[in-house]
Amino acid sequence: MTFASLPVTELPPPRQAALEAKSALAAACGGRVSSRDLDRLSYARDLWPLAMLWVRQGKTPPPPDLIVWPSSEEEVAAVILIARQRGLSVIPFGAGSGVCGGTIATNGGLMLDLKRFDAIGPIDPVRRCVDVGAGVLGEALERHLEAKGFTLGHFPSSMAMSTVGGWLAARSAGQFSSRYGKLEDMVLSVRGVLGTAEPFETRERPFAGPDVAQLLIGSEGTLCAFTSARLRVHPVPQARVFRAFEFSSVQVGLLAIRRMFRDGLRPTVVRLYDPFDTAIVGKPGKQRTVATAPSARSALEVTVVPVVLKTLAEQALGRAWLLNPLTRLVSKSRLVLMFEGETLQAEAEERAAAACCLSLGATDLGETPGRDWFKRRYDVGFKLSRLMESDTFVDTLEVSAPWSQVSEVYERVRAAAAPVAFVLCHFSHAYLDGCSLYFTFVGSGPSEAAMEDRYHRLWQSALSAAMSAGANVSHHHGVGLLKARAYQQSLGEGRHALAALKRTFDPDGIMNPGKLGL
Amino acid sequence: MTFASLPVTELPPPRQAALEAKSALAAACGGRVSSRDLDRLSYARDLWPLAMLWVRQGKTPPPPDLIVWPSSEEEVAAVILIARQRGLSVIPFGAGSGVCGGTIATNGGLMLDLKRFDAIGPIDPVRRCVDVGAGVLGEALERHLEAKGFTLGHFPSSMAMSTVGGWLAARSAGQFSSRYGKLEDMVLSVRGVLGTAEPFETRERPFAGPDVAQLLIGSEGTLCAFTSARLRVHPVPQARVFRAFEFSSVQVGLLAIRRMFRDGLRPTVVRLYDPFDTAIVGKPGKQRTVATAPSARSALEVTVVPVVLKTLAEQALGRAWLLNPLTRLVSKSRLVLMFEGETLQAEAEERAAAACCLSLGATDLGETPGRDWFKRRYDVGFKLSRLMESDTFVDTLEVSAPWSQVSEVYERVRAAAAPVAFVLCHFSHAYLDGCSLYFTFVGSGPSEAAMEDRYHRLWQSALSAAMSAGANVSHHHGVGLLKARAYQQSLGEGRHALAALKRTFDPDGIMNPGKLGL
Repeated sequence: MTFASLPVTELPPPRQAALEAKSALAAACGGRVSSRDLDRLSYARDLWPLAMLWVRQGKTPPPPDLIVWPSSEEEVAAVILIARQRGLSVIPFGAGSGVCGGTIATNGGLMLDLKRFDAIGPIDPVRRCVDVGAGVLGEALERHLEAKGFTLGHFPSSMAMSTVGGWLAARSAGQFSSRYGKLEDMVLSVRGVLGTAEPFETRERPFAGPDVAQLLIGSEGTLCAFTSARLRVHPVPQARVFRAFEFSSVQVGLLAIRRMFRDGLRPTVVRLYDPFDTAIVGKPGKQRTVATAPSARSALEVTVVPVVLKTLAEQALGRAWLLNPLTRLVSKSRLVLMFEGETLQAEAEERAAAACCLSLGATDLGETPGRDWFKRRYDVGFKLSRLMESDTFVDTLEVSAPWSQVSEVYERVRAAAAPVAFVLCHFSHAYLDGCSLYFTFVGSGPSEAAMEDRYHRLWQSALSAAMSAGANVSHHHGVGLLKARAYQQSLGEGRHALAALKRTFDPDGIMNPGKLGL
Repeated sequence: MTFASLPVTELPPPRQAALEAKSALAAACGGRVSSRDLDRLSYARDLWPLAMLWVRQGKTPPPPDLIVWPSSEEEVAAVILIARQRGLSVIPFGAGSGVCGGTIATNGGLMLDLKRFDAIGPIDPVRRCVDVGAGVLGEALERHLEAKGFTLGHFPSSMAMSTVGGWLAARSAGQFSSRYGKLEDMVLSVRGVLGTAEPFETRERPFAGPDVAQLLIGSEGTLCAFTSARLRVHPVPQARVFRAFEFSSVQVGLLAIRRMFRDGLRPTVVRLYDPFDTAIVGKPGKQRTVATAPSARSALEVTVVPVVLKTLAEQALGRAWLLNPLTRLVSKSRLVLMFEGETLQAEAEERAAAACCLSLGATDLGETPGRDWFKRRYDVGFKLSRLMESDTFVDTLEVSAPWSQVSEVYERVRAAAAPVAFVLCHFSHAYLDGCSLYFTFVGSGPSEAAMEDRYHRLWQSALSAAMSAGANVSHHHGVGLLKARAYQQSLGEGRHALAALKRTFDPDGIMNPGKLGL
């Protein structure tokens, strides 16, 4: 699946059917419709790295025909009804920070920008929830809540450039998901409009009967557009406690995490870096740029990009098989932990976690690495695109796996990707049942075309390796176009049930075509 | 909704279409098909109290035409296919302990007994899960797990007479749900056969894409039959710690529970008894039958039934408005807590919970009430039917509500039911967002017919009151026939989505007709 037929070099004019619908859409949406080329170009891509490779080559993913900005459920329903009548695709759009091509207008149609759903309702302190419009940006929501003493507990790296609606669509996970869960665990109820143009509102658990909310969450715009969600909020924690450890290997570190959860501990943050990622992160006490970079990618940006990439130059990355073996020279694996909540409890859990780690021979690194990670935890998202401006490509593969499979997924993906790209990995979003594996690939090539070819080979082999080792295709980035084929494969016979659901909620097949392989 | 047209006084013969299908079903199921009257009568009812009122009047709910006992997914698929071809209803059946008429063969058809799906797979100690057949009884499963050092953490009162498949169908909750969640939270994946006759298997969270498992769980046989589930297991806890408190009122007790969850405590058991329930439970140190009865209903059986019911006689209960005001003479509300897990953690949480309760002026009752509750926690289920043999009726209404609505639901249901029945309530299954309210109604009447009439008035008014105060129609008993109309009402516009799902997964409408109002 190379998506080779997707990009265009010239912006095509809007489809006739769309232009014919424009006045009806304008009437339905208070005039908020655009067919301007600049708007169409802006909405043609999200943060899918492949699309950025295209842009570097003077191409663009296909643009939508029109952009509409509804501001009420009735307007959304009216837009979808018009789209149904005229056979136009509808692509719900939040802030465009997705990295899997989830909002690419594969066959034009209407970009349904939901950012006007920007209301944040009053916080109910007894019920501990808040109603939030789908278009609210994460950063704005969290600031609003924290000013009133509450937190959502949801901190994706895309915080400043992703919306509640996007989170719902993709089953988003934030950096604190070990304690607060993924977004689907935070949702009390959702509202929106189905592909039939019917509005819906789900009930709050616990209840009897089928859970329709959990069916629609994660549907990536293929079944419905979300307009708002009722989300659980928490008091801002009294205390945050940090502690880091270094393990003799990834495997021992993973065992420590698994034991913590088995023993009932609830770390807010659990991040285990594989040896090379750890080596890049550096030892505590060294100079800040090296010592404190919390994430492999921000470290890459700060240290490796100038030092390694520029020094070893393109050909070294072009021959990742030369670089990857270097990682065998290092073996230590660093774990960063954060506990939060009521002070005594958080400290008690930290002590229990420390005992667990030390009993496995870990070296105590104290609180500094964790505090440093915390300070710089958003740096990555903003800097990734700068890397893409150079003559390399960077992408991330995140999957989830049950504990029994985590090591095997790690080894197989590394082996599969090593010939094509330089590979780093950290394990985060840990739970009772398993965790996510977050791989970062850095690749290069003698030409843009060679690089794109390498990019596809990388994805093909890495994702196949992950799946054959028992991983789910995605933990929180979603499926989009990028993983659509793999996702359908992973469903097995279940793909019939999903196809039936698609026909039920989107009988005309207009909702975000191609995503999830639908 | 009085269901007056449902019961029959004579067992009707099996439908011709069913008899004609018998040989095909026998061929599909290794000969395990029955049309014997004794079998049909046995499968005609579950533990719905209304059906027991009918039995007392010499009537029976309508029987199925045939009972089939498949033993593989292929056999289940074959049975459903035959049923589709011949327009016969299919009612998945576990152990028949439901109390909402969820397995009543409203228009005959095939009772699909799944008890031959009785396999328990090996426990995966790393993944911490086990594959369990839908027909496995709860008691058998838990004994099997505990012998190997694990627990499911799921302890419904029906433990000995309910199956994994029934739990899945009804979104079961056990007595320890505050810590381990409801059944839907314990399920990693499910397998079964849809009403289309297609087998399905769901994926394990966390993942991307829609969650089909959560759509099918709770569907009460209206969309599919479950054949097995992969369930999370936990190590048997190192310690169990009990503590009980008495509060000046229900409201203060509820506030204490809410604060505990807000502060991050995870009690395994939280049971707050309303004043009369507390008065029946008695004071610690009194004679065992009074002092230690943990549940209002087992207490009723042991003390109130002989003393109050027989003394005040039928007319007193017939005039519940005389008896209910007596409850105003008592106001104390008892809270029973149990913490479990690693010893130090459990004790630390118990101390934090105690501090919370004491700060609200509660009286410390020590550990005895909790230990006593724990010992006798299954007594109720087995004794309820004996009460029904007397000239009273007993039923329970369990609903869930967010914290902001719990008090109002409590007051309104009491007010609504008081003219018709004697009302007790406890609050259990507490979570971060709310809790369940478990009402016990005891009623009587001058005749069986009058009693049945009173039973219907009671349900009508009590359930309406709960819903108007913001409750969900059920926390864990399910919907069945009993709450079908109320459930559909509660869905609002969402009922269209549910109807569409029904058409998708059960295009011929043969799966457990009438349940969930489908």
